[in-house]
Amino acid sequence: MSQPFRIGIAGLGTVGTGVIKVIQKNGDLLALRAGRPIEIVCVTAQSKSKKRGVDIGGYRWIDDIPAMADVDGLDAIVEVIGGSDGPAKALIEKALKKGIHVVTANKALLAHHGQQLSQMAEDSGAGLAYEAAVAGCIPIIKAVRESFTANRISAVYGILNGTCNYILTTMRETGCAFGDVLSEAQAKGYAEADPSFDIEGIDAGHKLSLLAANAFGTVPNFGAVEMTGIKDIQPIDIAFAGELGFKIKLLGIAKFDGKQLVQTVEPCLVPGQSPLGSIEDVYNAVFVEGDFFETPLLTGRGAGEGPTASAVVADIIDLARGHKIPAFGIPAARLKVPEYIDSSNIVARYYLRLSVLDEPGVIADLSAILRDLNISIESMIQRGRDPGQPVPVVLMTHKARFADIQEACARIDKLRTSIEPPRAIRVEQDL
Amino acid sequence: MSQPFRIGIAGLGTVGTGVIKVIQKNGDLLALRAGRPIEIVCVTAQSKSKKRGVDIGGYRWIDDIPAMADVDGLDAIVEVIGGSDGPAKALIEKALKKGIHVVTANKALLAHHGQQLSQMAEDSGAGLAYEAAVAGCIPIIKAVRESFTANRISAVYGILNGTCNYILTTMRETGCAFGDVLSEAQAKGYAEADPSFDIEGIDAGHKLSLLAANAFGTVPNFGAVEMTGIKDIQPIDIAFAGELGFKIKLLGIAKFDGKQLVQTVEPCLVPGQSPLGSIEDVYNAVFVEGDFFETPLLTGRGAGEGPTASAVVADIIDLARGHKIPAFGIPAARLKVPEYIDSSNIVARYYLRLSVLDEPGVIADLSAILRDLNISIESMIQRGRDPGQPVPVVLMTHKARFADIQEACARIDKLRTSIEPPRAIRVEQDL
Repeated sequence: MSQPFRIGIAGLGTVGTGVIKVIQKNGDLLALRAGRPIEIVCVTAQSKSKKRGVDIGGYRWIDDIPAMADVDGLDAIVEVIGGSDGPAKALIEKALKKGIHVVTANKALLAHHGQQLSQMAEDSGAGLAYEAAVAGCIPIIKAVRESFTANRISAVYGILNGTCNYILTTMRETGCAFGDVLSEAQAKGYAEADPSFDIEGIDAGHKLSLLAANAFGTVPNFGAVEMTGIKDIQPIDIAFAGELGFKIKLLGIAKFDGKQLVQTVEPCLVPGQSPLGSIEDVYNAVFVEGDFFETPLLTGRGAGEGPTASAVVADIIDLARGHKIPAFGIPAARLKVPEYIDSSNIVARYYLRLSVLDEPGVIADLSAILRDLNISIESMIQRGRDPGQPVPVVLMTHKARFADIQEACARIDKLRTSIEPPRAIRVEQDL
Repeated sequence: MSQPFRIGIAGLGTVGTGVIKVIQKNGDLLALRAGRPIEIVCVTAQSKSKKRGVDIGGYRWIDDIPAMADVDGLDAIVEVIGGSDGPAKALIEKALKKGIHVVTANKALLAHHGQQLSQMAEDSGAGLAYEAAVAGCIPIIKAVRESFTANRISAVYGILNGTCNYILTTMRETGCAFGDVLSEAQAKGYAEADPSFDIEGIDAGHKLSLLAANAFGTVPNFGAVEMTGIKDIQPIDIAFAGELGFKIKLLGIAKFDGKQLVQTVEPCLVPGQSPLGSIEDVYNAVFVEGDFFETPLLTGRGAGEGPTASAVVADIIDLARGHKIPAFGIPAARLKVPEYIDSSNIVARYYLRLSVLDEPGVIADLSAILRDLNISIESMIQRGRDPGQPVPVVLMTHKARFADIQEACARIDKLRTSIEPPRAIRVEQDL
């Protein structure tokens, strides 16, 4: 048997201990597939004494996290600490500079510093692999970087955050409000104590920026992702959407025409019976569109110890097999800086929910505002009558520019009869 | 720019011309991704003069197919002729012996001669890649061979033949008989003039044997795949299945417990609302089960010029990047010969449709036969009354061994009141 492939594991949370379990349980199989044994040499984490449910007695403990890169003879470092800066970044930079391969699940770090880290890896000949950073066990990074390479990719989109999908699914099924469902998700371990990265769309934004870079050969640019979270989604919106045949999903969407790139994370209406509409609970799903194929779909659990550890170990085996390609599929220096366009240019159908006083002339006022902005109404629902009191009115528009929709909302909000700011949600019909 | 990666293309049908179109259209992008230009040097096919809708004037024409391996300086040969023997095999063997990489879409050849060809490739250092052989643009071979490598895989299954799925979908939607739908599929180009490979399950069997070899590290063994096609599926079965909440799908299923391998291709009942039940028309879908993840699903178009050519070109780019692994993920000599078990051992629920005379005592006779074989009945449907005439009776059993189900069918068939041989279809509930 050839030389072992010697690794250090930095971070012993759910993913790190999961990786150790996989290697301890399936070591023989990994060696057969990699052509050489995978040997854990050393580990590091914030606390040495914490109970972890896995035996780390046989591995050298490193006290200072970045010092792991100084251990002699390491082939690769697995970084599963997380965070876009701090010890994770210090360790990865040190390792890459020394030509030590890095396997990481750290989407934030790559979304912020991806091009620079990719260049560092290329300069020293190290590999930089991060399948686990996006969509758990769904091999979407490899698919985009290695399997869809024949295609000029025009779009990559999907449900990228399992926590949000769980919350939206549960809100629909129970009719409960966002806050209540979030608390329940936290109790079940489906949402973090500080859920902001998930529910504000930041986690999905990190992932989307990495997918876009791989798909389009553009610089990963998290700063150019427009993000709207799900905390303002109300049960009434989910109910109206359902009545119209739609579900509300938090979608990450990146589209590129060769020059202009738009990257958005926001709740959208998708047809309930569509492939995306059928992805529920904590599942993720990613679609890719290229010039020679039609939207293959990959779906699976987006998180969890086993799926994420599986993705990390697959990257380790790739590197042990000698397989590495640039972090974003092409040399870092060749990554393009596209023209970024914002969502005000997106032309789509929109769902508009208004809260207006139930009195004569209100609909005429609304209609006039929309007419003046060239927005045509496809359908309108007004449920219940309550003269003089606020009632919800839902409008579905034909295709319109989002900038015009925003202007319409601003004008409607100024009407005396408008009680709450209008809510606009894009319809993603053709996905 | 580095040395071009020089290829020859053998076979200029749909896939071969598709590959040329991709390379002609996206050459700049392929070069960027591969790190070197992809250059088509020569082509060969049965007929030089045929119209193909693609300009091959710049490529050297080779008259004798296997002689392509004699062209100087070729890095890889793309074989898209097809057939498990004949010129395709002669060319591939010659190329592999000379250390020329081979990219092929030829599932039959690999299903029959996979281990030997893998060994040949290893001996000379050539790569043997065949993503296009299974499920079109779904990157399932790469996923199993490279992305799910952390896992001890216990099952791989799915809808592997688009033609059959189209026929079954259309039969359900229209109520038309198999033969009529097949003719329509042939007219639309969804089925071949000689449809036997598709409708008898042979094509799915080829694919299943390749998936199983990659998933389990076992010798690819098409001879050990039990195949039942779809031509005996009647509209009445599809209708009864629907009434019970199921759809009928042609499934390829391979399960391995580390020792025993079972490989079957046969029509099964799957819950209509399940992920597999929702895959319709020409779409394919593949699920994989491992010890550290839960069934990621990959779905997409299983055939067609663009998707298949995309898969071929992705393999070319892999090889141009210097990426190759053994054809079945581990060295050919290490592929295990498992113990093959046949479907008589499968324990599952079964759908039984009988055609019996509507007279007193018939149900008592049936029930006694099932009782004697320890098969319990979960539900029974008898539609309509027609004393003295044949009526259909549908039974859903609790879990039972298929051998017992077969024996029950044989005994029922001997009853005076049984008009047609009973039809048994397995229920795949837990997929």
